[in-house]
Amino acid sequence: MKIVTRSDLPSLRRSVDQGTEEQRRAVKEIITEVKSRGDEAVFAYTRQFDEVSLESLKVNPDEFDQAYESVDGEFVEILTEAAANIRSFHEKQLSQSWFDTSSDGTLLGQKITALDAAGVYVPGGTAAYPSSVFMNVIPAQVAGVDHIVMCTPPGEDGKVPAGVLVAARILGITEVYKAGGAQAIAALAYGTETIPAVDKITGPGNVFVALAKREVFGDVDIDMIAGPSEIAILADESAASTEIAADLLSQAEHDARSSSVLITTSAVLAEAVNNAVEEQLNDLPREDIARQSVKDYGMAVVCPTMQDAVDTVNEIAPEHLEILTSDPYQQLGKIKHAGAIFLGPYSSEPVGDYFAGPNHVLPTNGTARFSSPLNVDDFVKKSSVIAYSEEALKKNVDKIARFARLEGLEAHARAVEKRKERWK
Amino acid sequence: MKIVTRSDLPSLRRSVDQGTEEQRRAVKEIITEVKSRGDEAVFAYTRQFDEVSLESLKVNPDEFDQAYESVDGEFVEILTEAAANIRSFHEKQLSQSWFDTSSDGTLLGQKITALDAAGVYVPGGTAAYPSSVFMNVIPAQVAGVDHIVMCTPPGEDGKVPAGVLVAARILGITEVYKAGGAQAIAALAYGTETIPAVDKITGPGNVFVALAKREVFGDVDIDMIAGPSEIAILADESAASTEIAADLLSQAEHDARSSSVLITTSAVLAEAVNNAVEEQLNDLPREDIARQSVKDYGMAVVCPTMQDAVDTVNEIAPEHLEILTSDPYQQLGKIKHAGAIFLGPYSSEPVGDYFAGPNHVLPTNGTARFSSPLNVDDFVKKSSVIAYSEEALKKNVDKIARFARLEGLEAHARAVEKRKERWK
Repeated sequence: MKIVTRSDLPSLRRSVDQGTEEQRRAVKEIITEVKSRGDEAVFAYTRQFDEVSLESLKVNPDEFDQAYESVDGEFVEILTEAAANIRSFHEKQLSQSWFDTSSDGTLLGQKITALDAAGVYVPGGTAAYPSSVFMNVIPAQVAGVDHIVMCTPPGEDGKVPAGVLVAARILGITEVYKAGGAQAIAALAYGTETIPAVDKITGPGNVFVALAKREVFGDVDIDMIAGPSEIAILADESAASTEIAADLLSQAEHDARSSSVLITTSAVLAEAVNNAVEEQLNDLPREDIARQSVKDYGMAVVCPTMQDAVDTVNEIAPEHLEILTSDPYQQLGKIKHAGAIFLGPYSSEPVGDYFAGPNHVLPTNGTARFSSPLNVDDFVKKSSVIAYSEEALKKNVDKIARFARLEGLEAHARAVEKRKERWK
Repeated sequence: MKIVTRSDLPSLRRSVDQGTEEQRRAVKEIITEVKSRGDEAVFAYTRQFDEVSLESLKVNPDEFDQAYESVDGEFVEILTEAAANIRSFHEKQLSQSWFDTSSDGTLLGQKITALDAAGVYVPGGTAAYPSSVFMNVIPAQVAGVDHIVMCTPPGEDGKVPAGVLVAARILGITEVYKAGGAQAIAALAYGTETIPAVDKITGPGNVFVALAKREVFGDVDIDMIAGPSEIAILADESAASTEIAADLLSQAEHDARSSSVLITTSAVLAEAVNNAVEEQLNDLPREDIARQSVKDYGMAVVCPTMQDAVDTVNEIAPEHLEILTSDPYQQLGKIKHAGAIFLGPYSSEPVGDYFAGPNHVLPTNGTARFSSPLNVDDFVKKSSVIAYSEEALKKNVDKIARFARLEGLEAHARAVEKRKERWK
C-alpha cells in the first residue's frame, strides 16, 4: 500500500473496458443471430461457450426443489431475513403519482407506472451471488414490475448454482433461463421462442455481457456498466487501524483491479493501517487477488485538514465510503459524491453488501458524480399529464401561438388557435 | 394518411440512427483531438464545419445585450411567463433526502445531492429553440445544479441566435459557448481551457452530436438520444376532426420522419380527420415536410372497442398522447406507456411544448416503455446512508459473516467479525 499526500494522489479513474475490435464484432454477430434464429442460436452458443448441450433453456420446478434440498435451513433463514431487510428499505423509495390543480380547472401532474418486464442477468461460476439476485430483483418487485425473469449461464453439468435458485425462489421468481453472455442479453432484449423480451436489463457480467448491454441500449434500458469494486475510508486518529485494514481488504479481495483507499488526517494511522493490511493479507484465501489489488490500487492519502480529506473523497467519488471519524454525521453533509456512505465503526462495508437493506449495486469509477445506487425509480417511468381547461386556454392561446411562430412552427400555432373556433 | 385496422398497423419503431462507419470514425477523431488539444481543436473544427473564424468561444455580455435589444418586449414577457410555469411544475418534482431509524440505534437513509455541473447543447440554425433552452436548463436549476453551461454552434456571422441568448439571460445563464457538433460534446465531457467539463450533457442535436453523446456516455451522463417527434391521438366520435387534424399536423411539420397517428373507435371520425388533414396541409409553410411525414408515418387506426384502442396506444408507447374522448380521465389509468398525456379538447399538444409547465423533452420511438420526460431527478443522484448501531451489529454479525462465506468472500466475513474484538 502506498502512502501519499493529497497532491501526489494519482487518478483512480480507469477506462471502461470497451473490449477489443474482435470482441465487439463477436457480440454484434451473436445479437444478430439470436434476433433471427431465437432459441436455436441460444442453444448453439451455450454449446460453444458453456460447453454444455441443454435440453431446455428454462429451469424446471424439480431443479428448484433439488436446489432447496441441497442447502441447509439456516442458510435459507439468513437469506430470507436479508431479503426482508432489503425489501423494507426499497419500499421507502417508492414514488407516488401526483397532480396539482388550478382554480381555472387545469390539472397538471406526473403519473408513475412500473415497467412491464425486467430481466436480471446473473453471472456464472463463483460470481453467482444470491445477494446479487436480491439486489436486482427486489427493487423491480417493489416498483411493481409484473414480469421479472432471470438469465444465468449453466455450469458444465447443465445446472444453475443452488444458491441462485434458492434466492430466486425466496423472492417468488420462477422464470430462470440457462443462458449466459451476449446471447442472454440479446434474448432478453429481443425475445426468443422461450425467453421473453423485457424493457430493462440489469446485473453484472463479463466483457461480452457489458458490450452486449451497450449494444442493445436504446431498444431496451440497461443499468450502468459496473467497473471494479472500490472503497474509500475517511478516518481520523480515533479510528481503529485493524478494522480499517479489514474493511479495505474486503474490497481488495473482489478483483485485482479493485481499489481500496484510506483518506486520513493522521500520518500515524496511515502507517498503522499499512502494517495491519500487510499482516491481514497473509492468511486470506483470496490473498493473491487482494495483494495485487492493494499493490496496484491500494493507497493511504494523508491530508493536512479534514476539509482536505473530504475534498479528496469528493474528487474520487467512491463506490463505497466509510466515515470513521469521531463525528461521522458531522461530515455527511460535506460528502457530495459517493454510492453508499457507511457511518461509524459498526457499519463495516459488508453490512451493506448483504444485510442492512440498501442496494449493493452502486456506481463505480467516479460515476457517483452523476449516478445512483440501483433503486426502485430505475424500474418505473413517469408520464406528464396535462389537462388544460377552457379558461386557461382562452387566457393563453395567443401567447402560445406567438411563441410557436417565433420558433417558426406555424402548424403548432394553428393547432392551439383551432380551438378559438369554439368561442366564435 | 392511411386508414388501417389494428391488425394491419405496421410497426412504428424506427432504428436509432447509428451513423455510418465514416461518421463514427470522424466523431471518435474529433473527441480525441478536443481531448488533447482543447480550445485549439474547437476553434479549428468551428472553422471547418461552421465556416466561421471565432476570436473567442464564450459569448460576451455585449452580445447578450444586443440580443435583448433586438427582440420586442412582448416576446420577453411571454418567455418569462413560460419560464415561470415550467419552473413551478418542475419544483414539484424535487425529491427529498430521507432517513429511517430503528430503536436499536441504526439509521438507514438516502441522501439526494445535485450534480455539480450540467451542460446543455442547443442545436444551431432554425432548430435553435428558446423553449429547448428552458426545458433543459430549468430542471437542472431546480435540482440545485450550481454550474450550468450551454454550447451552441455559431451562425456564419459568428453569432448565436437572439432568441437563445434571451432565453438564457431570462434564466440567469451567463456561460454560453459557441461550439457545435461532436466538438462541443467532447468539450463538455472533458473540458478545454475555456469550456468547463460537466457531469451530464443534455439537449438534442444532429447525428454527430448523437454519436458523440453515445461515445462519451459513461465518462459523463447523457439524456436519451431523441428520435423524430411523435403524436398519437386517442379519440372517440365525440372529438372534433378539424382539431385532431391540426394537432396531428403540429407534429408532422417537425420532420419528414415524424409520426402522427389517430387511434379511434369511429370509422366516421377517421375519414373526417383524413379529409381535414388534406385540407389543412395545403397552406402550411412547412407543407412539404408535413406532407411527407403524413404520407410515410401518418395513420388512422380504427379499433372495434375502446380497450383495443388503449392497447394500441400502449403498444406504440407514443411520445405525445392526446386523449380526446368523452371521458378522458376514465382512460388515464389504462395508459401504461406515453411520454406526456394531454387530456381533453383544450390540451392541444403545443400547450405542452411551450407553456403549461411539464417538460417537452420526452421519450420517443417506443422508449416511453422504460424512460421518462426530462425531469429534476435527472440532475440529482442518490447516496445510500448506512449507520449501523453496535446493537444491530452484535445481533447480525454472525449472519452477515455466514452469508459472506457462502459467497466465498472470506475477507468480507473477517471485516465484520473484526468488530467482535471490541466485545471481548
